[in-house]
Amino acid sequence: MTGSIRSLLHPRTVAVIGASNDPSRIGGRPIEAMLLNSFMGEIYPVNPKYKTVQGLKTYPSISEVPARVDTAIIAVPAALTVEALRDCANAGVQSAIVFSSGFAEVGSSGREAQDAISAIAREQGIRVLGPNCLGSFHAESGWFGTFANAPSMIRLRSGPLGIVSQSGAYGAHVFLASQMRGLGATYWVSTGNEADVSVAEIIQFFASAPEVEIIVAYAEGVQDGPRLKEAFRMARVARKPVIFLKSGRSVAGAEAAATHTASLAGADSIYDALFRQYGVHRARTTEEAVHVAYSCQFGRFPKGRRIGVQTVSGGVGIQLADACEDFGLDVPELPDVAQKQLKELVPFASARNPVDFTAQVLNDPAVMKNAVGIAIEAGGCDAQIVYLSSVPGVQSARVSTLQIFKDIRDRYPDEHISLCFIASEEVTREYEALGYPCFQEPQHAIRSLAALARFHDSFDRPAEKTSFQDTRAAAIPARGPVSEMEAKRILANAGIRVVREVLVNSATEAVEAWRSFGCPVVLKIASADIPHKTEIGGVVLDLNDEGRVFAAYELLRSRASDLVPGARVDGVVVAEMVFGGVEAVAGIVVDPVFGPAVMFGLGGVLIEVLKDVVFRLAPFDAKEARQMIDEIRGRAVLDGVRGGQACDIDALAGALSRLSVFAHRHQGAIASVDINPLIVLPDGVVAVDALIVLREDVLHEA
Amino acid sequence: MTGSIRSLLHPRTVAVIGASNDPSRIGGRPIEAMLLNSFMGEIYPVNPKYKTVQGLKTYPSISEVPARVDTAIIAVPAALTVEALRDCANAGVQSAIVFSSGFAEVGSSGREAQDAISAIAREQGIRVLGPNCLGSFHAESGWFGTFANAPSMIRLRSGPLGIVSQSGAYGAHVFLASQMRGLGATYWVSTGNEADVSVAEIIQFFASAPEVEIIVAYAEGVQDGPRLKEAFRMARVARKPVIFLKSGRSVAGAEAAATHTASLAGADSIYDALFRQYGVHRARTTEEAVHVAYSCQFGRFPKGRRIGVQTVSGGVGIQLADACEDFGLDVPELPDVAQKQLKELVPFASARNPVDFTAQVLNDPAVMKNAVGIAIEAGGCDAQIVYLSSVPGVQSARVSTLQIFKDIRDRYPDEHISLCFIASEEVTREYEALGYPCFQEPQHAIRSLAALARFHDSFDRPAEKTSFQDTRAAAIPARGPVSEMEAKRILANAGIRVVREVLVNSATEAVEAWRSFGCPVVLKIASADIPHKTEIGGVVLDLNDEGRVFAAYELLRSRASDLVPGARVDGVVVAEMVFGGVEAVAGIVVDPVFGPAVMFGLGGVLIEVLKDVVFRLAPFDAKEARQMIDEIRGRAVLDGVRGGQACDIDALAGALSRLSVFAHRHQGAIASVDINPLIVLPDGVVAVDALIVLREDVLHEA
Repeated sequence: MTGSIRSLLHPRTVAVIGASNDPSRIGGRPIEAMLLNSFMGEIYPVNPKYKTVQGLKTYPSISEVPARVDTAIIAVPAALTVEALRDCANAGVQSAIVFSSGFAEVGSSGREAQDAISAIAREQGIRVLGPNCLGSFHAESGWFGTFANAPSMIRLRSGPLGIVSQSGAYGAHVFLASQMRGLGATYWVSTGNEADVSVAEIIQFFASAPEVEIIVAYAEGVQDGPRLKEAFRMARVARKPVIFLKSGRSVAGAEAAATHTASLAGADSIYDALFRQYGVHRARTTEEAVHVAYSCQFGRFPKGRRIGVQTVSGGVGIQLADACEDFGLDVPELPDVAQKQLKELVPFASARNPVDFTAQVLNDPAVMKNAVGIAIEAGGCDAQIVYLSSVPGVQSARVSTLQIFKDIRDRYPDEHISLCFIASEEVTREYEALGYPCFQEPQHAIRSLAALARFHDSFDRPAEKTSFQDTRAAAIPARGPVSEMEAKRILANAGIRVVREVLVNSATEAVEAWRSFGCPVVLKIASADIPHKTEIGGVVLDLNDEGRVFAAYELLRSRASDLVPGARVDGVVVAEMVFGGVEAVAGIVVDPVFGPAVMFGLGGVLIEVLKDVVFRLAPFDAKEARQMIDEIRGRAVLDGVRGGQACDIDALAGALSRLSVFAHRHQGAIASVDINPLIVLPDGVVAVDALIVLREDVLHEA
Repeated sequence: MTGSIRSLLHPRTVAVIGASNDPSRIGGRPIEAMLLNSFMGEIYPVNPKYKTVQGLKTYPSISEVPARVDTAIIAVPAALTVEALRDCANAGVQSAIVFSSGFAEVGSSGREAQDAISAIAREQGIRVLGPNCLGSFHAESGWFGTFANAPSMIRLRSGPLGIVSQSGAYGAHVFLASQMRGLGATYWVSTGNEADVSVAEIIQFFASAPEVEIIVAYAEGVQDGPRLKEAFRMARVARKPVIFLKSGRSVAGAEAAATHTASLAGADSIYDALFRQYGVHRARTTEEAVHVAYSCQFGRFPKGRRIGVQTVSGGVGIQLADACEDFGLDVPELPDVAQKQLKELVPFASARNPVDFTAQVLNDPAVMKNAVGIAIEAGGCDAQIVYLSSVPGVQSARVSTLQIFKDIRDRYPDEHISLCFIASEEVTREYEALGYPCFQEPQHAIRSLAALARFHDSFDRPAEKTSFQDTRAAAIPARGPVSEMEAKRILANAGIRVVREVLVNSATEAVEAWRSFGCPVVLKIASADIPHKTEIGGVVLDLNDEGRVFAAYELLRSRASDLVPGARVDGVVVAEMVFGGVEAVAGIVVDPVFGPAVMFGLGGVLIEVLKDVVFRLAPFDAKEARQMIDEIRGRAVLDGVRGGQACDIDALAGALSRLSVFAHRHQGAIASVDINPLIVLPDGVVAVDALIVLREDVLHEA
């Protein structure tokens, strides 16, 4: 039988292998912490040298412990760890925690021992946390399977958070920062080298554990992509926000990742795609993660992005509107009726939105309450942010201001209203108790609100995979290389429109092809051995008379034989010339952890200099493709520039979705695909050039 | 005699006009605050109704106060304010503070009264703060010329900060946030509607006041551009960091600015230019402003951008490296010798940079100290960031860890070392006392460090204006419109290379011109009445044979007469065709507040869709121009894309600088200038098309 994650995170019977009387040692600290915090279960110290440890009866070996042990803390040196773990497994222990370092993180010498741990877990069903981890704790039951210092530093506040981190030191930081924000955690877990239990599996547990409402995770790299996807899917179905801290973006950072961690860091843009697709909030800083989690605990996720901003200072209103724009929120002008009512109530107010009540309203609680009420009722927004400067903490205004917001909460129990003010913790707690997220820095309020709106979108998406438009059989050859024409035939079969083209083997045939198309054509050398045709002048554009078509054919043949002597040349492709539209680029990459992903970007300087591309894991539907398209910075190009026509976004989204289905179906065969350019026209999209590279390590079924 | 700003901000004799016994009234609150805080000067309440106010002898009118009054608090209704101010001026009062609202901020009805205040200040020399302001305070002397609540809320900490804000409510927020960060302010000033004293003038005062070391300012808009520039210049000469919060970036924000404030909001990109040129840090949030100011107070401004990152957690090191990249800091690989020494000391350390000491070093203070020492001495970086998780606050490690950093400080007294850890305020204060800026969130440490490095650059720039390369007389016509050829002649005289071109009046002359150039040419219709030539097909490109040049001439003449019948046509311009290079755009705009500014961007999608442009106020030198060029997002295009040659950045910087000198000299005559395209070649730059629009309201000297 395989031990459960619950036995690891919330055990009732705990053994400590290598138990120590000295609370400064790793075999002593967990015992001291559990005794101090009145652990609700049983502790069985194991150490052949002692009869008792810290006053507890101690056993010479795990096999002599007279109970079914949920988890064993293995506090012995690295060299003895594997044997101790095997003893635990043999004794029927459900799970174990290995603190020791000296495993995969130190290179091949430790890798072998770590592999042995993995094998024991796999073969005997004992679940293992670590090695090289700080363990876990569950404050409410007094369970402290950790030698982290954090829990001893402050009064623990239990709460809706589940925290999981590969790094113990950083996980402790996240925990303390949450506590200082008044946000309690129920579980805290550090996974270290992940010989067995991974961050993904802990997220799965959190997703199903009713006591966890909000999930915060930190990872440097993930090895089991499908499990992480499944964990995110489960959290979404359970309507639990996941806030993820993932390091390793910069060049310096990536280099450190390669030397630091035993896990494989997937490409960062793939992680971005994953997080967006599964509605996970990627936090860039600890502070951001904590503020978003804090805001989530109040449970009012706005249905949309229209924000009513109300302030007692016009200048701050402008700052807040700026910040809303930065985070993709709208501050729409309020309807005339709302503005009229506000002006009647507060004649000097600026009523458009941001609304500036002016500081005067604070002298008259009834006016303030009514003004906020008008903005909520007649404003047509999805959430409110109210800036109060330092007023809630001012002695003379404290009681009346709190009463205003009590009344507002009674009247609008479901409205999301974030408050921004600067006051003592005591004052802040009073407003929090009424269900108001409170922020000293308005930007945090706004960023959190934006995150909550995205969570709302994500929770409302269908939980099960949407069905994808069926594509015709897109046969893949058994081996590469794949010629350009073949690549386009394959993509056409996958439902992506490609340019009309014909392979010809004489100048006369080329002229015939041109005639049959009835429009200007392009001639291109066709050879799987010449993937980058332009480099040898293998493409001639915009030919529309017999003589030039004829000459171009002869030119291309002679260039190919002169410049790439050994190349197998299939002939020359005559293709219709596509005029107008916007040059885009689409492609497929296959990530070793997360599988196939589709890339999209616009051609030219946007992709080449600004790296303005976006990814999505395959497969995805056209709705997801639209979001993907909307994420590129150069998005406005597709709306038409300099009086150009708007592009056909529906067709583009459809093509990207079909490409993703193709990528998903043939992920075993494909190494990568480039469609460059993919021309986006006012009516439709058309692939002009395509390159399909097959995996060379497998012989695929056609 | 004109009253001094010091009389306003640090008065010794204070009158309160409309003094009240009731501390909740604006005529009572300042008196109560001064009495409670043992104001070091004399208070003279003025109110004909009372003999005493709050226990102080009270005078029936300002003229009867038996002292030279530094400042008078005018706490009377708006309608009585002008008269009260005039009485003060007549009585020889140096300065006055007007709290009342109901002036320019409510529209034309209040504008008149505000103009009267301005006139009294101008004509009689009394300096006026407000109206519609919260006043000012100077905690050390117990001066509270304010009815803000903030000072009464917490124990005031005096310190190196000077805070000035147009908005009183927001200024109070900044003050409280600073106090909570442990950062004291010496002066706090709110300027309100600025009938007389402006934010700029307060910054000038702060720049010259020895008790102010760091300046934080908030403004929604500024009316006196030259004074603000001079204030920034003075602060730079005094080596005082200026941190500026300027609202009004977003569309919603800008709309609110127009209705909210009586001041004119300059275009935001012009403010960006101003701040960059004068080395002012533009903070986007209160929090950012406070963290940067906090970091400045330790006074160690790094000489460069190379940062040594040292952590006890590899994953956090990666996060820190990512954040450094985001803020333009480098995390260079440490020299081999440093890596070797670190590896000898801590075998499992990751020594490249970010350096991961691993948590083990914390068990051995000597190792930790030496490891940090190696990174400092052999690392060749300009500053250090050390991440310590929660260690400094852990009871068992608290004393030893503090001792490590005492020793490090003793050994490297001048090194900037920011610490990141999470612990109680008490623990944090111990490290601050040793001169370490301490941050809970590493991102704030890094952003602040980047700001400090920029301040260092700025302080080290020559204090006086650099002299600019003299340009030849670039005559400006007395009246517009200016034809394209004329525009280019003017720019050529200003030292900017333009394409060779000739104005011709017959097809034969056109052909002759083509022959004389000996290269492909462009023909363009020349008419000041047709500024946008391409719209009527008035440009024909790449002509290189007699017949086509001849035909193009005839075509352009007939198009002009057909499509713009009344246009005065000067002829046709034959210009050399420029091949290759990168299309850039340069221009001049004249901001009503800050004067002429030069714009630069790259052509195409970068400028049209991404608005990737940058501004600088004119004039500036080539070094500033280089920084300007480096700020565009598409900067890499100029280094050569797809194997293209790198562009001549020196020539581009020189051209932009000369354009700025031209803009500066002719700012009275010019409305705007467009050079589009300005082609940046591998050797030089050349203006291909230019448009100069003159101001129509003045007749200028040629």
